[in-house]
Amino acid sequence: MLNFTFHNPTRIQFGSGQIVALNAEIPDDARVLMIYGGGSIKSNGVYEQVKSALGERPVFEFSGIEPNPRYETLINAVDVIRQNNVDYLLAVGGGSVIDGVKFIAAAACFEGDDPWDIFTKRAPVKRALPIGVVLTLPATGSESNTGAVVTRGEDKLPFASPLVRPAFAILDPQVTLTLSPRQVGNGVVDAFVHTIEQYLTYPVNGKVQDRFAEGLLQTLIEDGPKALSEPDNIEVRANVMWSATLALNGLIGAGVPQDWSTHMIGHELTALYGIDHARTLSLILPAMMKVRRDTKRDKLCQYAERVWNIREGSDEEKISAAIHATEAFFRKMGVPVRLSEVDLGSEAIPTILNQLEKHRMTRLGEHRDIGLDISQRVLETAL
Amino acid sequence: MLNFTFHNPTRIQFGSGQIVALNAEIPDDARVLMIYGGGSIKSNGVYEQVKSALGERPVFEFSGIEPNPRYETLINAVDVIRQNNVDYLLAVGGGSVIDGVKFIAAAACFEGDDPWDIFTKRAPVKRALPIGVVLTLPATGSESNTGAVVTRGEDKLPFASPLVRPAFAILDPQVTLTLSPRQVGNGVVDAFVHTIEQYLTYPVNGKVQDRFAEGLLQTLIEDGPKALSEPDNIEVRANVMWSATLALNGLIGAGVPQDWSTHMIGHELTALYGIDHARTLSLILPAMMKVRRDTKRDKLCQYAERVWNIREGSDEEKISAAIHATEAFFRKMGVPVRLSEVDLGSEAIPTILNQLEKHRMTRLGEHRDIGLDISQRVLETAL
Repeated sequence: MLNFTFHNPTRIQFGSGQIVALNAEIPDDARVLMIYGGGSIKSNGVYEQVKSALGERPVFEFSGIEPNPRYETLINAVDVIRQNNVDYLLAVGGGSVIDGVKFIAAAACFEGDDPWDIFTKRAPVKRALPIGVVLTLPATGSESNTGAVVTRGEDKLPFASPLVRPAFAILDPQVTLTLSPRQVGNGVVDAFVHTIEQYLTYPVNGKVQDRFAEGLLQTLIEDGPKALSEPDNIEVRANVMWSATLALNGLIGAGVPQDWSTHMIGHELTALYGIDHARTLSLILPAMMKVRRDTKRDKLCQYAERVWNIREGSDEEKISAAIHATEAFFRKMGVPVRLSEVDLGSEAIPTILNQLEKHRMTRLGEHRDIGLDISQRVLETAL
Repeated sequence: MLNFTFHNPTRIQFGSGQIVALNAEIPDDARVLMIYGGGSIKSNGVYEQVKSALGERPVFEFSGIEPNPRYETLINAVDVIRQNNVDYLLAVGGGSVIDGVKFIAAAACFEGDDPWDIFTKRAPVKRALPIGVVLTLPATGSESNTGAVVTRGEDKLPFASPLVRPAFAILDPQVTLTLSPRQVGNGVVDAFVHTIEQYLTYPVNGKVQDRFAEGLLQTLIEDGPKALSEPDNIEVRANVMWSATLALNGLIGAGVPQDWSTHMIGHELTALYGIDHARTLSLILPAMMKVRRDTKRDKLCQYAERVWNIREGSDEEKISAAIHATEAFFRKMGVPVRLSEVDLGSEAIPTILNQLEKHRMTRLGEHRDIGLDISQRVLETAL
């Protein structure tokens, strides 16, 4: 395996009823800004649980963080922080809220002229407000990692800093029982593709990393569809929730090559057409597997055998069967696998390629050899 | 799965040549006490690498930590710390050195009369010196967890505190190339049994935890023997090293029942007869599996099928085959599986049971139902 640093100090409080742990996690004298999205937490009881757990602390609120959080929205939160001398940010929501809060935490302490420079000029994040999380949608893993993605106009851009890693994350599977089937499907697929992008590269004999990634994929394959067919099964929800966090907490990617090309192309589909993040991944990944089956041959065979238990046939047949099984799994989760299903045809491809070029996404993949020509083939294969 | 808290802030620096990372991990103005064992680090180059990486910092030394570190030795280090105003402890060694350093770190800041009270009276650890680790022997996982075991006379007792968790651990598989076959065998078996004690209990549908544990077991089964037969294979050493850390960093045990009865009986064998820790585990575990095959039936079947790929036969046949395979694996690692192999007969059993009673180890196991009668049957089965 490759040399690596692994460090993940986020404290995870996992299980039913764990929102009460907020009280011990946040300093007694904190001035808290509770940040959330569209308000679903007010109808499912989470809002009341959080407020109750925060007790007598002064709590301010900032709501309206949209899916694919927008710079224009987030920057308004900085004003609320300054007006109220807020010193602790509490994200209550899924990946979009948490990503947005990460940027808010950095922007509130940013010393330069324009915090957008963090994305476009790699301006360093030198300080950030502390962050806690109450996770409501298992999907992105943002609750215990250092990364965030923010959208401004047609630019959807990432940043990362250890200073915005949440200090703690509360994972109560109970709060996921009220998610819509679309949210559940998207979340499972997002976690699945996160795992794949750190696994389906080339072998470096990282046996533990491979086995752990395969364990997450198998769990999502077994329990993802059950989260739709048995929506009240709390054990299933717990397994999905813990899988999604571990899929992107740094562990399975430590010491192995990573790809992320599916994500980078997917981001452009969201920025251009507003397609849900996870659905951009289900649209691109199968096509990526097909186009890259030669460079990913060894790992695709391993994936077929260990994850899908496909033992019969030639290597080529196993790989084809594994790609087919992946598509069937995505369909079972209710997400599209062809661009035509989201009303995109070949006329969209030049626009997408232009965006990739604009964002310098011209050397993608674990070998950094996915130029615009290969991205074009992937998009054509996904039609 | 069960509710849990997971928190492991130890920073892992993994890979060949990583000892240089010491310089960035330890404060520039630290006064460091470098603590090690019998001096093998002076013949394999580790000592020089560590000293070089520490640069101009004042470095004091304390050597002679023995396997199963002894209270009488460790307490002497506290004097060295006080005489030299040491404020940072660097453990360079395996689990015994690291466990010893954890106690030293707590004892140096202990405010009561006798630091031994930490073990016998559960005196609270309120402060401890910071600890860094350069790991030389992959086995115990002590490099990133909160626990330690210390011996005084015939008492071998554990304590745990988040304050003694190492701040960082450097895992360079290169430094394990000079280990003796006995150390390699012991280390692999120790990590294997750590994993088993958190896995082989009763099912709580913790799918990720089960898959991760199985992945560690499979890796140790595949690469443990290779560490003996291909001693220069650095990839094998790396997989063994990373497996051993993850076997006891809190992850696979989060949210699932744990057993630890094999360890508790094993500790008495070490305290009474000086048997290597891992060898006490290989002596007891197969007998424990045999005696507890009814209460552990479901997980033993899963272990047979997923870890050993035993798919044929009745459940009883699969379980028997899996226990047999476990014994064969231990033999391949060069460790004993019968008390007779270490010259212990039935006459030793009352002595061992007396020790268990003295240490109140009379309600062991995941159901807390292993009294002295069942421990006796386990020991008789291990003859």
